[in-house]
Amino acid sequence: MPLSAEHDQQAVDLIRGFAMDAPLAANSGHQGTAMALAPLAHVLYSRVMKYDPADPNWIDRDRFVLSAGHASILQYSAMFLAGVGGDDALTLDDIRDFRQWESRTPGHPEANHTPGVEVTTGPLGQGVANAVGMAIAERILGERFGGAIDHHTYVIAGDGCLMEGVSHEAASLAGHLQLGKLICVYDDNHVTIDGVTELAFSDDTAERFRAYGWDVVELGEIANDLDALEAALVAAQGTDRPSLLILRSHIGYPSPDHTDDPHAHGLAFDADDVTRTKAEMGVPDESFWVPDGLLEAYRAHTAERGAAAGAAWDDAAADAIADPAFHAARLGTGVDGWDTDLPTYERGEQIATRKAIEAALNATYDSLPGLVSGSADLTGNTGTKLKAATVQTPDQPGGRQIHYGVREHAMGAAMVGMARHGGVLPVGGTFFVFLDYMRPPVRLAALSGAKCCFVFTHDSVGVGEDGPTHQPVEQLATLRAIPHLHVIRPADANETVAAWVDAVRHDGPTALVLSRQNIEVTTDGSAVEFGAGIVTGDGDPDVVLVATGSEVPVCVAAAERLGESGISARVVSMPSWDRFEQQDTDFRRSVFPPDVPVLAIEAGISLGWHRYADDVVSIERFGASAPGDVVLDELGINPGHVVERARALLAG
Amino acid sequence: MPLSAEHDQQAVDLIRGFAMDAPLAANSGHQGTAMALAPLAHVLYSRVMKYDPADPNWIDRDRFVLSAGHASILQYSAMFLAGVGGDDALTLDDIRDFRQWESRTPGHPEANHTPGVEVTTGPLGQGVANAVGMAIAERILGERFGGAIDHHTYVIAGDGCLMEGVSHEAASLAGHLQLGKLICVYDDNHVTIDGVTELAFSDDTAERFRAYGWDVVELGEIANDLDALEAALVAAQGTDRPSLLILRSHIGYPSPDHTDDPHAHGLAFDADDVTRTKAEMGVPDESFWVPDGLLEAYRAHTAERGAAAGAAWDDAAADAIADPAFHAARLGTGVDGWDTDLPTYERGEQIATRKAIEAALNATYDSLPGLVSGSADLTGNTGTKLKAATVQTPDQPGGRQIHYGVREHAMGAAMVGMARHGGVLPVGGTFFVFLDYMRPPVRLAALSGAKCCFVFTHDSVGVGEDGPTHQPVEQLATLRAIPHLHVIRPADANETVAAWVDAVRHDGPTALVLSRQNIEVTTDGSAVEFGAGIVTGDGDPDVVLVATGSEVPVCVAAAERLGESGISARVVSMPSWDRFEQQDTDFRRSVFPPDVPVLAIEAGISLGWHRYADDVVSIERFGASAPGDVVLDELGINPGHVVERARALLAG
Repeated sequence: MPLSAEHDQQAVDLIRGFAMDAPLAANSGHQGTAMALAPLAHVLYSRVMKYDPADPNWIDRDRFVLSAGHASILQYSAMFLAGVGGDDALTLDDIRDFRQWESRTPGHPEANHTPGVEVTTGPLGQGVANAVGMAIAERILGERFGGAIDHHTYVIAGDGCLMEGVSHEAASLAGHLQLGKLICVYDDNHVTIDGVTELAFSDDTAERFRAYGWDVVELGEIANDLDALEAALVAAQGTDRPSLLILRSHIGYPSPDHTDDPHAHGLAFDADDVTRTKAEMGVPDESFWVPDGLLEAYRAHTAERGAAAGAAWDDAAADAIADPAFHAARLGTGVDGWDTDLPTYERGEQIATRKAIEAALNATYDSLPGLVSGSADLTGNTGTKLKAATVQTPDQPGGRQIHYGVREHAMGAAMVGMARHGGVLPVGGTFFVFLDYMRPPVRLAALSGAKCCFVFTHDSVGVGEDGPTHQPVEQLATLRAIPHLHVIRPADANETVAAWVDAVRHDGPTALVLSRQNIEVTTDGSAVEFGAGIVTGDGDPDVVLVATGSEVPVCVAAAERLGESGISARVVSMPSWDRFEQQDTDFRRSVFPPDVPVLAIEAGISLGWHRYADDVVSIERFGASAPGDVVLDELGINPGHVVERARALLAG
Repeated sequence: MPLSAEHDQQAVDLIRGFAMDAPLAANSGHQGTAMALAPLAHVLYSRVMKYDPADPNWIDRDRFVLSAGHASILQYSAMFLAGVGGDDALTLDDIRDFRQWESRTPGHPEANHTPGVEVTTGPLGQGVANAVGMAIAERILGERFGGAIDHHTYVIAGDGCLMEGVSHEAASLAGHLQLGKLICVYDDNHVTIDGVTELAFSDDTAERFRAYGWDVVELGEIANDLDALEAALVAAQGTDRPSLLILRSHIGYPSPDHTDDPHAHGLAFDADDVTRTKAEMGVPDESFWVPDGLLEAYRAHTAERGAAAGAAWDDAAADAIADPAFHAARLGTGVDGWDTDLPTYERGEQIATRKAIEAALNATYDSLPGLVSGSADLTGNTGTKLKAATVQTPDQPGGRQIHYGVREHAMGAAMVGMARHGGVLPVGGTFFVFLDYMRPPVRLAALSGAKCCFVFTHDSVGVGEDGPTHQPVEQLATLRAIPHLHVIRPADANETVAAWVDAVRHDGPTALVLSRQNIEVTTDGSAVEFGAGIVTGDGDPDVVLVATGSEVPVCVAAAERLGESGISARVVSMPSWDRFEQQDTDFRRSVFPPDVPVLAIEAGISLGWHRYADDVVSIERFGASAPGDVVLDELGINPGHVVERARALLAG
């Protein structure tokens, strides 16, 4: 049964109260937006969204993304009321612990940390693009698994989100794909950190989004009208375009002193402000006030709604539940035997690792039902073309090939959203140097454990003629720098196949770093599992040559020459530093024997290699425009130079 | 005198010929766009743009930015015709050397490499934002120096540029600022690498730009109509809004087989294609054909135009030429004595380095006439507020305080454009973690030697309650990774002042990494000049503790405790690795004595420190939401932990 009008009002008051109390207690946080949007959050969690508080991971729940993540207390307060997480739901103590060490209510919403938080937000604009990815995932799964997947994605975005470039890319993509189940509420409060929005922002946002092909509704001054908010959200569910609902709100409302005050964005109200605002609201001047009976009524209401939704789903999803592909998709892995019958390559074959990934992806297209691949306008170039897939379009809602356009940033963030949605395993490709365009989502993938696979090809100055703007030299080091990101740079086609298997098995994001140019096959691929492995020189070496990717064959050639002059050189392929770090000391010493000098070779900067190596053959500059083999050779990535440096190292 | 109609046609034919011949010779490159836009380039260089080919660095020249940098042969061919660079102009041999090692005609235009190339482009969208920065610089300087600065900025952008998020940020900012002297031609060719643009792109671009406040003109099918192109460009000069001229073009025109063919984007025509196209054009089937007399006529024409423009400028700029501030601005430095009377701080004072940079910037506001400061909606937070400056608006065209909005990417790219324009010294601030939003322009600043100063504050987990999304841990390593970028993380307020002086003197980009929280003053600032310096422990130490930024006082405290137990510890502040690497071996050994163990302390990942240190106290994970001092302490950045690790290191 619906909540009473009194409970409605109390719920809004409670959220507003928490929005002031928690930042006051923490002496940190953002109360203004949370206060203004309290009615919206209440309407979403009590009337509009389909979810089961007892089962926050139910796959067919509506997804909610607070792109304006600084208003985290808004979501925490609403989820506390709604009891999201059942026995594990946020408690009043959790709310009191806002922004404290090891609390469940951190400064910005963190996925995998607080039940009911879908994605980690805070860096502005990301949530909008995450939501686009979620809506894509929903559409693909809905087409394949019928009634098992049929839900909406709601996102709250602020001025900052819409100023960020990623919002352009994501909104343009969403409009192109006509993602009708995506509903974005734009919190149009006319205020940013620096002051009024007009200081820096003159867009006609409605026209901008119409130009992207969105349905735009200017809601006006209904931020406190629960029924009007509900009606607007419900109306937006039925459209065949993404919806932008522009809600004129008043930051800090209903504070008598700070409504519409830019300071209400980020500076905590003092205790007097809170007292005066609570007086204005007509609620007790009591910290973390919870009206008698509200919590029980609210949670009973949401539990009832959730149970009804769950029961309906059990019927609708019956076919899917009986389908092994549905289970594999949900687990993010493959049907039985998915990792057999993968390509293998003979030593001596010449194949670019970007071609090897294409072969591996296509070999697993049928057996990995969640596999969805795409690129930022470089589909053929990056090996991310699925030959048997249809292209994702409004007319082909099941299409597992995504044309993201020249939108690396939105691609990355959409992939995070898809991965966090679950049921799909997103693979996305671009040139390695353009990692720089999409670092924020790669970082957030790592932070939130989003299982996706970033494919970065054209991985060194071997790119050639396109020149230094297109030649990565520092990107590999900067990728290894991201905590909890699994990075693999395979030495050849066999390691590439192993890397793909590893990425599918890995419970988190993986980045594959692949070559444009052909690489001779020199390994059996086994180094991937342990992060490093011996390619040649099993015995007692005089020197170890260690490298990744296309530099491994350079080392093999150098080792041969050294051997001809009586120097025993071991070649180690070390495709994944992070994986190697997880091995025990014995294994690590078996690869790098103590007291044997180590020379690393990398077609990029040396940063980080001194942890493993005594010296590094590297490229400490930007590249240059010329044929790739010429650039590599001129910049010292050749067997002769490696031999020379190895001799110098041994000479001390 | 104007060129004859015959010469007009020959010029267009020559550019189209080169656009095919050079990629054919290189077996690499992009002919299609260059062929389509040959008439536009010819009109810009022969009729519209104000420049003096003999003096390509003349400060009042119109600026030209090829944001679609892959069409570099277009610009090279036009500059060859026009003789840009005078005696140093591109030769036919240069054109023949397209995309070869050490040639002056690399794959994408590179500033500081080819005369007449203003900015380095290729990564899509950057040029659009660079041009916005140039137009801002022009407006500021024009207001201050009257007739000395009065020119336009032209940019050619493709679909890819407009899909990239940075184009949204930059266009929104340009519309907000009403940069009327910015003219962007959108090469609307309906083709991308993956195929027809419609695969991924459905924007109504005209409406989108109108929503930003631009003047939009849909030119239609005039790509080959020289007079119409000229008229459209001239008309756009007179508006008080930025202009988007949408030019429907046909990639690969006039190839009989590849006009409008997506393959014409990036795959070289074969020799037969070139032959057939030249037949269609009615020109000789001859590689790098230069019609008799054309080059002489063209260069005479552009020289005449240039000389006239230069002569007019000598009169208009007379006042500015007599103004020392104008010279200082052009040199990118200060008037005499600019670096005296800077703040100094007493040991023991507590001050955040973001506050120290604010003091330093404000102390030099008058003496650095080119100083222009701004932030991405974090002006107060990042110390980039110039108290005496007006805000840059259409009504305050001289305003040296820029509100970039929540647009880090556009800010960075605009700063590169401003720096490359010259006359201004852009300073721009954001939170350090949002470096990730603006890496492409930071990289391009380093690649092109653009003298700007990036201010990154809130530089560690010391950020506190905002949590891991806002706490940099890997950003410092990834900043140090960029070749040719000068990175300084000052240990205190004195080093911050020294860092600002250093940044102004440095001929290239500098990144300052500054704290949110107070740091005790422990140094005299002298370490900045050499990259590292001894803070305490001049004698023969038992152990060296090395750190940067806020970790230096932690080391000082740890060294005291170690001293109490008879261990002599030296503390080294190492604010700039890149600067330290430039010092000779004697100096480096005077800081790090051979055979003395070194322990590094960093409130971030250890990546790279093993080059200098035997062990590293670091944070190999993402941060957490809690008060900053709590997070630092919990994650091991405290004197007790440093003492413990130093003892362990000495114990071997």
